[in-house]
Formats: sequence, C-alpha cells, structure tokens
Amino acid sequence: MIMEKIKQAVGILDEEGTDLWLTFVRESEVNHDPVLDLILGANCTWQSAFMIPRKGDPVAIVGSLDEARIRETGAYEVIGYTKSIKEVLLAQIEKIGPESIAINHSVNDIMADGLSHGMYLILTGLLEGTGYAEKLVTSEKIVSKLRGRKSDEEIRRITAAVELTEELFDRVSNFMKPGMTEKEVAASMLQEADKEGVETSWERELCPSVFTGPESAGAHAGPTDRKIEKGHVLNIDFGVRVEQYCSDLQRSWYFLRDGEISAPPEVLRAFDTIRDAIALAAEKIRPGMEGRAIDSLARNYIVEKGYEEYPHALGHQVGRETHDGAGLLCPEWERYGNLPYLKVEEGQIYTLEPRIQIPDYGVATIEEIIVVRNDGGKFLSHLQTEIFLV
Amino acid sequence: MIMEKIKQAVGILDEEGTDLWLTFVRESEVNHDPVLDLILGANCTWQSAFMIPRKGDPVAIVGSLDEARIRETGAYEVIGYTKSIKEVLLAQIEKIGPESIAINHSVNDIMADGLSHGMYLILTGLLEGTGYAEKLVTSEKIVSKLRGRKSDEEIRRITAAVELTEELFDRVSNFMKPGMTEKEVAASMLQEADKEGVETSWERELCPSVFTGPESAGAHAGPTDRKIEKGHVLNIDFGVRVEQYCSDLQRSWYFLRDGEISAPPEVLRAFDTIRDAIALAAEKIRPGMEGRAIDSLARNYIVEKGYEEYPHALGHQVGRETHDGAGLLCPEWERYGNLPYLKVEEGQIYTLEPRIQIPDYGVATIEEIIVVRNDGGKFLSHLQTEIFLV
Repeated sequence: MIMEKIKQAVGILDEEGTDLWLTFVRESEVNHDPVLDLILGANCTWQSAFMIPRKGDPVAIVGSLDEARIRETGAYEVIGYTKSIKEVLLAQIEKIGPESIAINHSVNDIMADGLSHGMYLILTGLLEGTGYAEKLVTSEKIVSKLRGRKSDEEIRRITAAVELTEELFDRVSNFMKPGMTEKEVAASMLQEADKEGVETSWERELCPSVFTGPESAGAHAGPTDRKIEKGHVLNIDFGVRVEQYCSDLQRSWYFLRDGEISAPPEVLRAFDTIRDAIALAAEKIRPGMEGRAIDSLARNYIVEKGYEEYPHALGHQVGRETHDGAGLLCPEWERYGNLPYLKVEEGQIYTLEPRIQIPDYGVATIEEIIVVRNDGGKFLSHLQTEIFLV
Repeated sequence: MIMEKIKQAVGILDEEGTDLWLTFVRESEVNHDPVLDLILGANCTWQSAFMIPRKGDPVAIVGSLDEARIRETGAYEVIGYTKSIKEVLLAQIEKIGPESIAINHSVNDIMADGLSHGMYLILTGLLEGTGYAEKLVTSEKIVSKLRGRKSDEEIRRITAAVELTEELFDRVSNFMKPGMTEKEVAASMLQEADKEGVETSWERELCPSVFTGPESAGAHAGPTDRKIEKGHVLNIDFGVRVEQYCSDLQRSWYFLRDGEISAPPEVLRAFDTIRDAIALAAEKIRPGMEGRAIDSLARNYIVEKGYEEYPHALGHQVGRETHDGAGLLCPEWERYGNLPYLKVEEGQIYTLEPRIQIPDYGVATIEEIIVVRNDGGKFLSHLQTEIFLV
C-alpha cells in the first residue's frame, strides 16, 4: 500500500508540476505528520527528510540509529547521518535541482499541515543562501489528492468498516431500553467492538457518542449519566477501524411512550427532512463541483422546511483518519478557510451528516458515507430510511 | 494533576516575565500538541485557544461542539464560537493586554513545538494589525521547566514504571536461551507486559528492542529473526507506562559458550566501562551544569579507555513521554541545536545510556534513570553492576 501511494504521489507531482515533495520530521511518534502513514508507515527519531521527486527514486535521509528500520520499509533509498543532516540534505536537493519544493504546511487542511513551525524554521535555516528556501510551496493540493483519491483496496477496507459499524448498530438496537444511561449504552457498544477485535475510529471516550433527549450535550461530548426516557430521541455517532481504515456513521432512535405506536409527527417530519437532505446531496454531487455547492443544497433544503441550519459542515472525507482532510462539504464560514471552494473529485469518500434539533425530544441525526462517481454519490452505507423505534 | 500543572505554569510565567501562554490547536487528536497532555487532558476539533495568563484565570476558546467536553475538564473558563474564533480571541487578548505571548514553537525542543506552521500562519493572520503578532515569543523555556520539574506524584509514577520494568527484565532473564530469535524474546516480554495490564513506553513494534550478537541492527530498529547464539552479547531496550508515566531502561546479557564460566575479558571490560561511566555521570551531575558537561564526562571516560564514542546523547528526560523534551545530556552537535547548553535543574529525571560496540560479540548497553538533586543524581533504577550470564 505504501509503494502504491508513493507511485500515486509521483503522478500527482506531475499533474501539479511540482519537482520535489519533501516531508521533514523529527520524533515522529510524538509530533506525527499524518502523511507518514501514507508514504512511510514507520516513525523516526532524529531530523529526517523523506524526498519524493517527480523524476527519480524516493530518498530518505535519517539519523544513523533509524537507518535499519526505515530501510525495512523498502520504499526508499536510505542515507544515514550522525552529526548533522545539513550536508546530505543539501547534496540531495542539489542533485534534483527542483524549481519547486512542496512541504507539509497548510492553513486549510490539517492533513497537509504536519510540519511544525519549529521544523519550518530549521528547514529554512538549513536552506539559507542556497536559493531553495524561496522555492518552498505548500503541499496541500498534493496531499489532498493523494488522500482523497481512494484506490479499490482503500474503498474495500472502508466498506468493511462501514458494514461492521452497521452490524454493531443493529446489536445496540436490541439491548437499548428506557432507564439505561448514555454511558451504559456506550460501554455495551465498546464491548461489542472489543469482541470483534476492532479499534474505534476516534478516541474511545467519545466513540460512540450517545445523546438522549432534549437536554443532551452538543456533538463532540462524551456520554453522560443521563438516562434514556420514553419520549426521547436518541442518536449515536460511532465508527470502527478495519485494516487501518475508518467508518463514521450516525443513527437515530425514538423511544415510544406508553400507548404510542409510532414517533410523534414533529419527530417524523424532522427525521424525514434530514434523510431527504442526504438523499438529495448524494444524488446531485458530481466531480468538479465545489464543496459549498453540495453543502448549500442540503442546508437550504432544511432551512426551507423551517428548521435552523446545522452548525457544522454537511460532510467530511473519511479514510485512514475519521476526518481525512480537504475537501470538505462546508459553508463559506471563515473558520473553513479555502475549503468551501475546493472541488469534489472522483473516488473521494464523504460523510453526509446534517442534524436537526427537535424541541422537547432531542436531536435527530443521520450520517451516511458515499463514494463520489461521475454519475453521483454511491452509498457505501445503507441509508437509514426510518427512525428506529424502541 | 492538570490543575497542579496549570498552577505550576503560572509560577513559571512569573519567573520568565511572560504575560500570556497561548496554546493554539485544531483537530488535536490528529495533530497533537504534546503540551495538551499537561494543561488540558482532552482533545478539540476546531481551532481552539488555551490561554494561561500570568495574572487572572485560564480561558479556553473552542468550537461550539467542543464546549461541553472542554468544560468537563474543569480547568478553564470556556467560551464557544460557531463561525470564527477571531472576534472572541482578540477580545480575550485585549482584555489581558500582554507585553509578550508565548506560543508553542521551538527549533530545539520537540515538546515545545506543537504549533504547526499552518496554525502559525493562521494565528499571525488573526493578529494582523493588532500589534500582538510582534509580541509572540517561543514558549520553550516555559514548557521545558513545566515538563522537567517533576512533582513528587510524578516521581512516584515513574519509579513505579521503573520497578515494573526491572521485574520484567528479571522474568526475561529466566526464559532466554540460545536458539531463540530476537522476535521471540520481544513477544515474550510483551506477553508479560500484557499480563500486568500496562502499555509499552513507545510503539510495540520497537518496544522492547532486542539486539543479539555482533551483526545486530543499530538502535531504533525492531527485533528480527536473528537467533541468539552462545558467545553473543545481547541487549534489550524496554519501558512501560504506569498511570501515563514512562520508564526507559536497557540491560545486557552474555550467553556462555560451552566450558565458559564467565564472559570473556573484552566483554567484561566494555561492560564495566559503561557501568562506571554511568556511575561517574550520576555522581557529578548538579543543578546549574550544562547538559554537555555531563555528556562529556561520560563520553571522555569511555574514549580514554580506548573505545569509540557513542553516536548519540548520554541521556534524555523521561516523563509523560519517553523522550520528554529539553534539556538533554548531549554533545555539541549541530542537530542538537541549543540543547547542549541548557542547564540541568533540580527535580528533572534523566536516563544515562552510553553504549560500546564489542567486536565479535555485540553491543553492550546499560540505561539507568536518575532524578537530579542538589547533591547529585539519585538512581530511581537499580544500576546493573555485572553483565547477566545465561
């Protein structure tokens, strides 16, 4: 997979007209540049340079104690150093003679922002007087394309993670009942995930997130001691990792009050609105559209039905990380930087996850996962068509 | 512990004459600023600012979806935002009116370098025109002091991790024998660690590292299928985490050849040399000395005995991370930046870990852990006085 991704990277360098992609790191277990998972699959201790040129072979310059383990990855010609990386690094760059050197910093995309500011200062210091400091550019387009364009194998793994997550949602449907706390529901789901021998997509304290009833905490909060009551809408946000690839799904339930045989009309109407917003977005999405166009389709649909807009993006990419980097299906808010304007590409995998607050009942959410094809979004998950009743 | 560390931080701000310490992060689970473990103990998704002023209360500005979970930490007044952090952030800075704002970038210390270059660009963009961008300084002294000065509770946890590691070394002594591979030794140690319910100090693929014989790989490499033979020197580098704090120790063994009752003289002489170099460094270390002075004591001792100098630092700090940041007991090599010149402080915890290559036998290493006191280094581990015989 590492070799496959490096080969893909070389093709992208060619598309972008970039001569060299330089990943510059140290102590990568502590300060972990996320591109290392794609192009190395290992960690290093001292200052290290992973150089993927548009033409020629990939080279890794690493501390002498790291040489053996980096060589084991088989993906690079490895050069070791003891006292300073400077001489070897400059010689290698000189050999390539690049007109542009992409490095991993980005105001927009966390996944292309693995270079620390201290390492940036070190790098520009090393390059001082060579003229190469002026040739540094952001790698955000390279990283975005490399992470975004999922190979068949990557799609297979994500689909496996999605299917297992759906299976775990089925199981939780069978054991949830009024009187259980959010924490108890979360603990049971984790127990099921442990039985399957899989890790959660994000930190266990928040995965699953469980929210029951009208006074539940906002998204990104952990489960509490709040008890499920009859008349609550409950939602769960959960995902698991299969062979290092993540899923991220949400489902909603309604707990029937005595005598009820279906959810109240206002609950059904809210649920159906988010379901239809998701279906609309999946139907209309095409390569070449900007992320904001998809977000606003769903957002406007919901607002036109008389609901408040959701306070976040419609969807993010999923891959090795739950939030797998640019592009994003998001509105033009300052905190999203240039992300609303990035174009959707064929082979990208997105979540679709609007939410509606239903006064007196709780929050209804659905989160599905699609892969972008030339004729629209193809669901990797099975769209929740009706709110689950307990 | 978080509250204790924040209080300690305020004292250090006062010592350093710094008005505000600002930790600026996003998606901190992916791009994790290591200071968050000391001052927050949680993660956040959107752009977030954790502000610890010299005077006044700590404030956290976080995305609205993160509000609940950050409030749960109990350490900050929490302010949420939805569309942009700018207005709230500038208002809070204005309220403090700092003459200096420390941010987490450092060319020298990875632990103080959690700010990505992209986030640095965002921050200076947000501050543009306010005059505060010119007041940004590195937090490296603050972080170094905060991580380095271990409280009694921190020392207790590290000591517990050291003792458990020594116990696991004892067990491995009992089951190692010629014919076993490095991988088998490593797997058995991991099994023992799993029984104790502890995690390794660094990634399991390299923890323990096991090196047997004269042709073993360099440090920082994983165990291989190389088999232990009679006449091999073998060393293991291992550590475990107890209540989030790490140990990091190395021990050496010799496998007797038929008819031998002790290791050959050249093995004994090399082993004794590193043991005595460690004892010397522990005896002479004092608060106020520069790290390079301690390193050169041990380094010169070894070189004077006719051996090559070890190709790394004499010792690093240990704490929440195995490599717990500046200062370092290291030589004046370019790649160490200003670290050789940092002064040792009372309450810091260091490893001491010289190595000697013994031709035809293997590498002898010992790694011990000391806490720095006014009258010298006090061992938290039990110095290996003789090479273990199998």
